[in-house]
Amino acid sequence: MSSLILDRRDLEFMLYEWLQVEQLCMFPRYSDHSRETFDAVLDLCEQMANEHFASHNKKNDAQEPWFDGEQVHIIPEVKQALDVFAEAGLIAAGQDYELGGMQLPTVVEKACFAWFLAANVATAAYPFLTIANANLLLHWGTKQQIDTWVKPMLAGRFFGTMCLSEPQAGSSLADIRTRAEPQADGSYRLFGNKMWISGGEHSLSENIVHLVLARLPDAPPGVKGISLFLVPKLLLDEHGNPAERNDVVLAGLNHKMGYRGTVNTLLNFGEGKFTPDGKAGAVGWLVGEPNKGLACMFHMMNEARIGVGLGAVALGYTGYLHALDYARERRQGRALANKDPHSQPVALIEHADVRRMLLAQKAYVEGGLALNLYCAKLVDEQRDALDEELDDISLLLDVLTPIAKSWPSQWCLEANNLAIQVHGGYGYTRDYNVEQFYRDNRLNPIHEGTHGIQALDLLGRKVVMQEGAGLDILVQKIQQTTAEAAPDPELAGYAAELDAAVYQICDVTQQLHAAGHPELTLANASVYLEAMGHIVLAWIWLQQMQVAKGRQEDFYRGKMQAGQYFFNWELPKAAPWMALLADLDTTCLLMQDSWF
Amino acid sequence: MSSLILDRRDLEFMLYEWLQVEQLCMFPRYSDHSRETFDAVLDLCEQMANEHFASHNKKNDAQEPWFDGEQVHIIPEVKQALDVFAEAGLIAAGQDYELGGMQLPTVVEKACFAWFLAANVATAAYPFLTIANANLLLHWGTKQQIDTWVKPMLAGRFFGTMCLSEPQAGSSLADIRTRAEPQADGSYRLFGNKMWISGGEHSLSENIVHLVLARLPDAPPGVKGISLFLVPKLLLDEHGNPAERNDVVLAGLNHKMGYRGTVNTLLNFGEGKFTPDGKAGAVGWLVGEPNKGLACMFHMMNEARIGVGLGAVALGYTGYLHALDYARERRQGRALANKDPHSQPVALIEHADVRRMLLAQKAYVEGGLALNLYCAKLVDEQRDALDEELDDISLLLDVLTPIAKSWPSQWCLEANNLAIQVHGGYGYTRDYNVEQFYRDNRLNPIHEGTHGIQALDLLGRKVVMQEGAGLDILVQKIQQTTAEAAPDPELAGYAAELDAAVYQICDVTQQLHAAGHPELTLANASVYLEAMGHIVLAWIWLQQMQVAKGRQEDFYRGKMQAGQYFFNWELPKAAPWMALLADLDTTCLLMQDSWF
Repeated sequence: MSSLILDRRDLEFMLYEWLQVEQLCMFPRYSDHSRETFDAVLDLCEQMANEHFASHNKKNDAQEPWFDGEQVHIIPEVKQALDVFAEAGLIAAGQDYELGGMQLPTVVEKACFAWFLAANVATAAYPFLTIANANLLLHWGTKQQIDTWVKPMLAGRFFGTMCLSEPQAGSSLADIRTRAEPQADGSYRLFGNKMWISGGEHSLSENIVHLVLARLPDAPPGVKGISLFLVPKLLLDEHGNPAERNDVVLAGLNHKMGYRGTVNTLLNFGEGKFTPDGKAGAVGWLVGEPNKGLACMFHMMNEARIGVGLGAVALGYTGYLHALDYARERRQGRALANKDPHSQPVALIEHADVRRMLLAQKAYVEGGLALNLYCAKLVDEQRDALDEELDDISLLLDVLTPIAKSWPSQWCLEANNLAIQVHGGYGYTRDYNVEQFYRDNRLNPIHEGTHGIQALDLLGRKVVMQEGAGLDILVQKIQQTTAEAAPDPELAGYAAELDAAVYQICDVTQQLHAAGHPELTLANASVYLEAMGHIVLAWIWLQQMQVAKGRQEDFYRGKMQAGQYFFNWELPKAAPWMALLADLDTTCLLMQDSWF
Repeated sequence: MSSLILDRRDLEFMLYEWLQVEQLCMFPRYSDHSRETFDAVLDLCEQMANEHFASHNKKNDAQEPWFDGEQVHIIPEVKQALDVFAEAGLIAAGQDYELGGMQLPTVVEKACFAWFLAANVATAAYPFLTIANANLLLHWGTKQQIDTWVKPMLAGRFFGTMCLSEPQAGSSLADIRTRAEPQADGSYRLFGNKMWISGGEHSLSENIVHLVLARLPDAPPGVKGISLFLVPKLLLDEHGNPAERNDVVLAGLNHKMGYRGTVNTLLNFGEGKFTPDGKAGAVGWLVGEPNKGLACMFHMMNEARIGVGLGAVALGYTGYLHALDYARERRQGRALANKDPHSQPVALIEHADVRRMLLAQKAYVEGGLALNLYCAKLVDEQRDALDEELDDISLLLDVLTPIAKSWPSQWCLEANNLAIQVHGGYGYTRDYNVEQFYRDNRLNPIHEGTHGIQALDLLGRKVVMQEGAGLDILVQKIQQTTAEAAPDPELAGYAAELDAAVYQICDVTQQLHAAGHPELTLANASVYLEAMGHIVLAWIWLQQMQVAKGRQEDFYRGKMQAGQYFFNWELPKAAPWMALLADLDTTCLLMQDSWF
């Protein structure tokens, strides 16, 4: 089956030839698994993504969810696709057998899910939000909460949301105002408004389980006074079936540039339209400890952010395959030296500048996919590794997470930009697919922590935590790769370039933290994030080249050339960024409001 | 009147303080003009753009033109705005008095028109296409063609189009197939299909004047066999009024990602639906000489390409002003050192990373505007300069044109990207304006010669023409600026950086042309275009800094800081690009189709 969604050959290269995920099967948790079972799930997902998701991707964009004042309407293909997804057991794919799961390693699960993200990111968002919600409750919820809410989610009967932002508080969760009043029976009543809630209202599932950040009475101000609550759309009857409406009301839909098929809502909690037991307030239950809500939420943040990065990669990847296909089919122009107007036009791919745009896309999307799968495998290792390795794995995952989220959000969006350019005027029309990918992907630098937030997380937190232990382990890992590559004449030059860049970023990191005060240290944090991102991606590419080198099949030649592209065209961009950081440039810091 | 369209203060800085356009009034053509008359037209345009164009920009996007199979429908606000524009005499603003014009210098005309491009690029496209069409006919048309077709266009009664591309031939005009058959009366009948025709069908004007590239019988193949024809939608009666339908039929509309309000059409010529005098074929008349059609068209290309660049700047500029306004109004988060959650959130602009995004936008859009106005002034000087200066001016304009087109198309699109990012989630919704600017601006790297075509034009033609005379004059101009700036302690560092970059690009240019064959020389032409673009923009910024330096008012401090941003953050990006070029990197050239 050929498709323009993802490249199965490349996925298999990453999973089996590079990451050697079959080795995970030595852990007891995955002992029933083998390459055969992994391939079977990949087959299933590829087929399902083609048949049930890609097929309505454009329609879901053109006919976005609409609200008639009473209810939200979503094209029927969405529910059909999600029912097929749930019936295949994929919502629980990563869970334990006892929860009805497949105990798939996260790295394989992510590779499987990438098919759906690439085929139709908007429809795929519903189950992936539900999975994130379920994972959080499985970690922090009580047994009763798990039985009551998580099991129906894993079966696809209930869907889940995350309710963090409020209209006045986007990135700044310290300022959320939604409040929760304790009730005599141990439950709570919630009052407040939540903004940007994906999947906040629909009829795709029997019920919706909202995870809501809110404040208890007398909670301390700021982030230390935020608790987490479970608030369903419908309260359950004594048999556990959805029954009475809870006091959660749709206040309106957000109409976005892209990602249109995912209904995005403004929800009002406790405005009194529905009054369970005759009282206003949305009924909810505390999850985890009081005032520890943000910690509960952020415990899952690594996975959520890797998920966003993977979504950005998936959109970039499918755009690249569309552009490649078009460049092979469309004939236009002639070789520069050919002055014969009678000769046939050549395929676009014959033009060096078109190959530049395709090679850049290949380097971005294959690099981004590799990074995200690498991180997903760290999630697996974190669960199953021996105790003495655990700290290093967690530290490495922590330091890589902001990059795994932000780098694909920036560069796979650029891949989508280039995919349009390869198509020329046709790419700018809605008759082709690439303009939608570009619009969809533009969300990714914004949600789950903006680019700027990721930068502060990396420079202000991750590389300084435990006296720099996170950065140390990353550097150690990179230097391990370069040491292995250095003796190889084909790779020695790349290893040396990467070593030099690593040396420079370590130097820059020290200078920044010696700068003295956070305003100066963090003023150019976004540049730091981008420089570190390119260095990490160069490392990821060098690892892929270690596997591909010396092999003559086209696939491996392509890997080598894309790696060469990354080292010759991309990594050098980091040099002026690092020079700027080393200079402690204050241009932006000292710019005054009144000068604009 | 405050608006978020353009910054009047900045326009006046550029026109009067930097370019000193009042000096143009010493030429006889502009002797009636003065700063007062220029300001009066700027006032008029600013007010009209606010009142009649910006007011329906969103509606024109949401309710794009539609075709019911019989006719095209366009929201009524478009015609109302265009009638106001025409009644004010603006279509003829740059023309001679005898044609009903104002004899405005091009640089002032462009500054005036920038208001409309920023307020509503889709509606503004109709008159600007008409102006381009009229300018072409004024240069190449017969007196009768001018009287019959141009005068009604300048009065706003007829609108114009440019019909170059065909479905099978986008950038590759050598392959166009539309044919023109000579008739006994000296007219022609045209047969063929034209694609991407903006303004190709509508009822906004009494008639539409198509300028069509086509082949005469027995014309040589390729670009040397293309002629230019004037083909109206409606043939005229004996009084010069539109009457009978010509054989030009709308085959369909293109539905674009942005720029939606400009109807974009596929036109069929000579399919026989209408048969003037009982014969199939669209009636047309030759413009200029047979087989010289491309030369006629390209004579106007400098101006058209500067116009695209200006459109890209205008969209970037209005997006920047929207982002700046939002960043001042929206309060979110606190200073990094402020740990008190009771304190009020600060305005977004208080965050250094938000100032980074605003400063980048400011540097891109003010730089792009300055470059385009500089080029527009060269157009004026080209018309009015003394003979001995004429060659230099024309050469400089020729070498700058691909940059004036492509640089804003790339970097002012990036400004729109940053404007969304400043808005966060809100910027991604259609409730705000910035997502539309981003979608609209994405067209500009595609039309009027793609980015790759501009790169080939610059490196393959412009910098080598007349043995490098174009590059020589550019370098000479830049070095004149750096020599003036060098003695100034505030500017000396920047002058030295720019000198070094110029030295390097000259070196690279020589190496590339010594490379021997065009495939190798031109393989990385896009990188050359981008490197040269950043160098030219640094020069443009240094010129602005020469005017602003040492002055304490906020406006000038802002100019200096934006210039500093350009030199510290942007110009250094050119170094790795030039290193890549100097290495004659073959990564893209040698990439094979089968390796993808």
